[in-house]
Amino acid sequence: MGMSYLVYPGAHHTRFHHALGAMFLMQKAVQVLRSKGVAISDKEKEALLVAILLHDIGHGPFSHAMEHSIVENISHEEISLLFMKELNTIFNNSFTLAITIFKNQYHRKFLHQLISSQLDMDRLDYLRRDSFYTGVSEGSINSERLIAMLHVKEDRLVVEEKGIYSVEKFIIARRLMYWQVYLHKTGLVAEQLLMRLLKRAKVLSHQGETLDSSQALSYFLKTVITQEDFNTSVLEKFSKLDDYDIIGAMKSWQYHTDFVLKTLSSMLLNRDLLKIEIQHKEFPAHKISDKKQQVMQKYNLTEDQASYFVFSDSISNQAYRMDKDTINLVTKKGEVIDVARASDQLNIEALSKKVTKYYLCYPKAL
Amino acid sequence: MGMSYLVYPGAHHTRFHHALGAMFLMQKAVQVLRSKGVAISDKEKEALLVAILLHDIGHGPFSHAMEHSIVENISHEEISLLFMKELNTIFNNSFTLAITIFKNQYHRKFLHQLISSQLDMDRLDYLRRDSFYTGVSEGSINSERLIAMLHVKEDRLVVEEKGIYSVEKFIIARRLMYWQVYLHKTGLVAEQLLMRLLKRAKVLSHQGETLDSSQALSYFLKTVITQEDFNTSVLEKFSKLDDYDIIGAMKSWQYHTDFVLKTLSSMLLNRDLLKIEIQHKEFPAHKISDKKQQVMQKYNLTEDQASYFVFSDSISNQAYRMDKDTINLVTKKGEVIDVARASDQLNIEALSKKVTKYYLCYPKAL
Amino acid sequence: MGMSYLVYPGAHHTRFHHALGAMFLMQKAVQVLRSKGVAISDKEKEALLVAILLHDIGHGPFSHAMEHSIVENISHEEISLLFMKELNTIFNNSFTLAITIFKNQYHRKFLHQLISSQLDMDRLDYLRRDSFYTGVSEGSINSERLIAMLHVKEDRLVVEEKGIYSVEKFIIARRLMYWQVYLHKTGLVAEQLLMRLLKRAKVLSHQGETLDSSQALSYFLKTVITQEDFNTSVLEKFSKLDDYDIIGAMKSWQYHTDFVLKTLSSMLLNRDLLKIEIQHKEFPAHKISDKKQQVMQKYNLTEDQASYFVFSDSISNQAYRMDKDTINLVTKKGEVIDVARASDQLNIEALSKKVTKYYLCYPKAL
Amino acid sequence: MGMSYLVYPGAHHTRFHHALGAMFLMQKAVQVLRSKGVAISDKEKEALLVAILLHDIGHGPFSHAMEHSIVENISHEEISLLFMKELNTIFNNSFTLAITIFKNQYHRKFLHQLISSQLDMDRLDYLRRDSFYTGVSEGSINSERLIAMLHVKEDRLVVEEKGIYSVEKFIIARRLMYWQVYLHKTGLVAEQLLMRLLKRAKVLSHQGETLDSSQALSYFLKTVITQEDFNTSVLEKFSKLDDYDIIGAMKSWQYHTDFVLKTLSSMLLNRDLLKIEIQHKEFPAHKISDKKQQVMQKYNLTEDQASYFVFSDSISNQAYRMDKDTINLVTKKGEVIDVARASDQLNIEALSKKVTKYYLCYPKAL
Repeated sequence: MGMSYLVYPGAHHTRFHHALGAMFLMQKAVQVLRSKGVAISDKEKEALLVAILLHDIGHGPFSHAMEHSIVENISHEEISLLFMKELNTIFNNSFTLAITIFKNQYHRKFLHQLISSQLDMDRLDYLRRDSFYTGVSEGSINSERLIAMLHVKEDRLVVEEKGIYSVEKFIIARRLMYWQVYLHKTGLVAEQLLMRLLKRAKVLSHQGETLDSSQALSYFLKTVITQEDFNTSVLEKFSKLDDYDIIGAMKSWQYHTDFVLKTLSSMLLNRDLLKIEIQHKEFPAHKISDKKQQVMQKYNLTEDQASYFVFSDSISNQAYRMDKDTINLVTKKGEVIDVARASDQLNIEALSKKVTKYYLCYPKAL
Repeated sequence: MGMSYLVYPGAHHTRFHHALGAMFLMQKAVQVLRSKGVAISDKEKEALLVAILLHDIGHGPFSHAMEHSIVENISHEEISLLFMKELNTIFNNSFTLAITIFKNQYHRKFLHQLISSQLDMDRLDYLRRDSFYTGVSEGSINSERLIAMLHVKEDRLVVEEKGIYSVEKFIIARRLMYWQVYLHKTGLVAEQLLMRLLKRAKVLSHQGETLDSSQALSYFLKTVITQEDFNTSVLEKFSKLDDYDIIGAMKSWQYHTDFVLKTLSSMLLNRDLLKIEIQHKEFPAHKISDKKQQVMQKYNLTEDQASYFVFSDSISNQAYRMDKDTINLVTKKGEVIDVARASDQLNIEALSKKVTKYYLCYPKAL
Repeated sequence: MGMSYLVYPGAHHTRFHHALGAMFLMQKAVQVLRSKGVAISDKEKEALLVAILLHDIGHGPFSHAMEHSIVENISHEEISLLFMKELNTIFNNSFTLAITIFKNQYHRKFLHQLISSQLDMDRLDYLRRDSFYTGVSEGSINSERLIAMLHVKEDRLVVEEKGIYSVEKFIIARRLMYWQVYLHKTGLVAEQLLMRLLKRAKVLSHQGETLDSSQALSYFLKTVITQEDFNTSVLEKFSKLDDYDIIGAMKSWQYHTDFVLKTLSSMLLNRDLLKIEIQHKEFPAHKISDKKQQVMQKYNLTEDQASYFVFSDSISNQAYRMDKDTINLVTKKGEVIDVARASDQLNIEALSKKVTKYYLCYPKAL
Repeated sequence: MGMSYLVYPGAHHTRFHHALGAMFLMQKAVQVLRSKGVAISDKEKEALLVAILLHDIGHGPFSHAMEHSIVENISHEEISLLFMKELNTIFNNSFTLAITIFKNQYHRKFLHQLISSQLDMDRLDYLRRDSFYTGVSEGSINSERLIAMLHVKEDRLVVEEKGIYSVEKFIIARRLMYWQVYLHKTGLVAEQLLMRLLKRAKVLSHQGETLDSSQALSYFLKTVITQEDFNTSVLEKFSKLDDYDIIGAMKSWQYHTDFVLKTLSSMLLNRDLLKIEIQHKEFPAHKISDKKQQVMQKYNLTEDQASYFVFSDSISNQAYRMDKDTINLVTKKGEVIDVARASDQLNIEALSKKVTKYYLCYPKAL
């Protein structure tokens, strides 16, 4: 949930809790599918539980801000995989099947879909969990009922036809959570500021400045890590990083002499963020440069420094993808059809349109 | 909820409970609007409470089956109005304003919208209530949050822009409840059977047969009532009718000599209903007449009698109407826009398409 | 819930729903116990499900009022048993084990405890259900958690020690529901009036008066039934009786010429009941007779007639019984101890004291 | 909730969230009391909101561990008061009335009871909140209903008589939360270890060791603060301390050379705590010293060092106090009575007995 707690003060739940929840749902799913005659061996079941428990382990603290600043050239999925491989060594290769399924290289494709698809246990847990902890009840989904209607046809995960309205509601709820929570404008500014703060820290570190921070964070600020560099030793350092390193550093950096570093730190700590405008069209270049000029003058900054406080970009969300890995229904007669085609209306098709919004951030004082 | 309890055994809540609930929500709505500076006088408030409390009073037992059999030429809204006028006389004209608002003849149009519109207190209560009692959690709506975002602009009820996702979810939930609960196939057959049972009882009564039934029900079985006939005395008789008269009669009619009357009665009492097929196209005439022929032969019936057991018709639902009385949003700048146009996607527009389905019912033994 | 809906308008749930719920909990309980290594054969499981599904089948409509008026000499448990035996004949003796367990004649005693004890599936369902439908959230219990902590030691049903606070809370909730719901003063008056109404109808019937009522109800009004009389034919008539017979009769009786019969009927139909006083001491005889005198004079009644409108009696509740069939805990070391002794405090012991209250009812006009 | 998240992974909610919740309940309480004719001026209302918002502001991170290690000679209530006074200066004395009420020096005593008593808004919020986030549903209380039944008699906060069962249930729920959550054995060991870790850090700091920690934490480790020392400057430093300082320090200390410091740190970080035994009697001195000897030998420690890993103490809880500030009911006739005396049974009286348990902690390896 990144910095969503600045908007929803109850949203302090952890990734650990989510991993446990997704594993719990996976157990239910296996139980349901077995009761419908889908053969899942005990080995496969264990692999599913391991894979879902570890699917997010490659996320660093404040994952998205991190991925765009400190560990730029490697995705969290790749890091998750590195962790799984490392653990596989430790646990005497007992995670091999879990890894094969996670990488979608296992011949029974529906097992991967339980871990990663448009109706996977990951989403069924995080949507419900995030709705619960934010209090945004419109985003609540009935995970147990959705799972109760799962089935497998032609090696694909499908939903029984009578579940069509529940699937629709799931997609709607997901869309609502995106715009109302995950892409909430205050959370968005905060995340952008955090990403920029970490970038600034990295720039300063590379310039030879010593910044007060934990050992692990210092390492990642000073070192440029590419995917190839990510060996066991780097992985171990990465595993030490958590929210305490980031927030702890910020608490010290708010007293640093660098204007950008200290200002961004106190903005985040004191929840005194930038102003944000959101609209459906791109912001004209001159408006952005005007704002930047004003900031340069007002705070006596270079253009590079000002760009930490004035920036524009876009966000987008597609509630349902029709191009690949669709959610499929199975009719009573055994036919498999895409939920978007089965729906009585243009409804889900409509939801598959990608929606893009543009935002512009700048200091409130302007 | 008619006979939905045959599908959802928890759905035994009453119209009385719904009326109390809608009145409770109306109090909240008045409180919210007043707190935003919308002037609502104490007299207007009282009128709103009276109108919403009585808005459904004209429904007979098993309302829809009733409206198409026993009281055919007058709608429940008209009967509600007759009750309100009668009560107005009893209460020294203190309901006059309530009636004016109910009839939409009051100059402040938004007050009527609170009682009857696509986002009225009636729907906000019944959707939530029916979702709660059936256990269909996907249909649950956050009535309190929707009410908290109500406002009035240019004398029209509007929703604050930030509530757009909640409105969408409300429309989706409503659609889901229609197809999953209100138009559920088992409930649908039961309602059709009840309607036909009451029609049969009326036919027999008009033929001079004496049917065991309460005084009030006997009166409506024997007498043809037009709107003009609905005087105080008829109204009083109507007010005596409730579920006990209908079910009580059925319990006796299951031993009657008339094949149609007794068979329909025991089908309903023993939840042993007709088979129902549902599809998106009309059923071909020959299929229907074939089934009818089979029933005539098998049970030795005339075509008229057989038509009580073999019939086809359509059901339809439009989750959102764009042609009139739309749900409007108000932007932060004060602009009023239709929610269907404000939505990021074709979504609500898609929901405004009327969906029609066709059904065919016939005995299971065929 | 008898006439509790007069107090809690949501309390219209049915005995059928409760039977389904209790059966659902029984499935959970079997699953839990089996997972802990308690052997329960498939035959025993089926017997448990049958027994709990049918445990309340002997209740007539408005059970308690009925048991003290119309079917006076036989308890609902005995009638349940008669039904089970009848069904056993129909189902080729497949209910024999269910009956043996129900009668507590099976050698594995804990199976009977699941159906009937201070922590049986019956209570675990009805407390939760009644709390849900009345909205009295203080009475809500966590049935699933209680079941998850069940175990069997020395052939007795026990609760794991860590569940002690949950058991305490269950007993407290039960006590709260008794005084706040089941023995609520308005529900109490209504039940007493209904019982007296049925008694009056019986008296009049025995005097040869013809009262408008369903066939089944007429039979029980006219005939004195003892336990021996309860043969298959009587049982079948009994099975026809439901709320519709009682309320339907009342709707007709409100226009009868007998003052007692018509007055009690309209009191119940119009929720215009007697006044009730409740206190911890008995009411002095002279106060009761004074009230009776006033009623005789005011309404010109005989003493016998007046006694339908003025009466005094007691109600009592014991939240936990220490004398027999106690709730037992099992410690980690395997010791079995009564929950009342295990509790840190006098708490449960305190709850085992029987509490008695006295009430006096008389017309409001006095 | 201290370190309860080690037991209940959802329990990551914050003190800030609790303060907002308690303020929300206070608004409700004021609204209820005003609607019953209890005069509360706008100034008094504002003071109540300020006082409840700030009532816990003097808590440091992991409050209880902190109070017994780092800031030993001053309670969190006293620090809360110091903060309020500081803020009062900043806000031009607008908090004076809030402070007067908080200190119970205002003439209308019931206002203080809303902030601090056996039924204050603090408890009504934290019990419900902690039950929600831990998932311990048995501890859930119906705060809104309790508030709806509040009244004031003779300047004391009272509960309407009909609320007696709700009050009982509140006390029971509180007791359950104490033993099942707040004093849960795992949370208890964790808190003891944290307290001892901070004590150790203080000892080492006083010996001149430099420990890696934030500026604020370093200050409190090095300096002995008495109540008199707590001036504005100390207060400001105290306000900088939060969980990030403590956990951040631990993350560094796990690599320190001091055996005690590093072992306690990694125990807490890796949730690999001491074994704990709990019983109703004191542990014999020889058992404790035996364990200590074993630890000294096994890990080659002095007795002083060993006492960080082997210790025994007691915990106690009194669900309801009868000696002062009781919860009072008001009867319909206006009489005020202690809830413990009004109760039908010994129930609440039983709950007022203080329960004490003893625990002994030592390394699992022993």
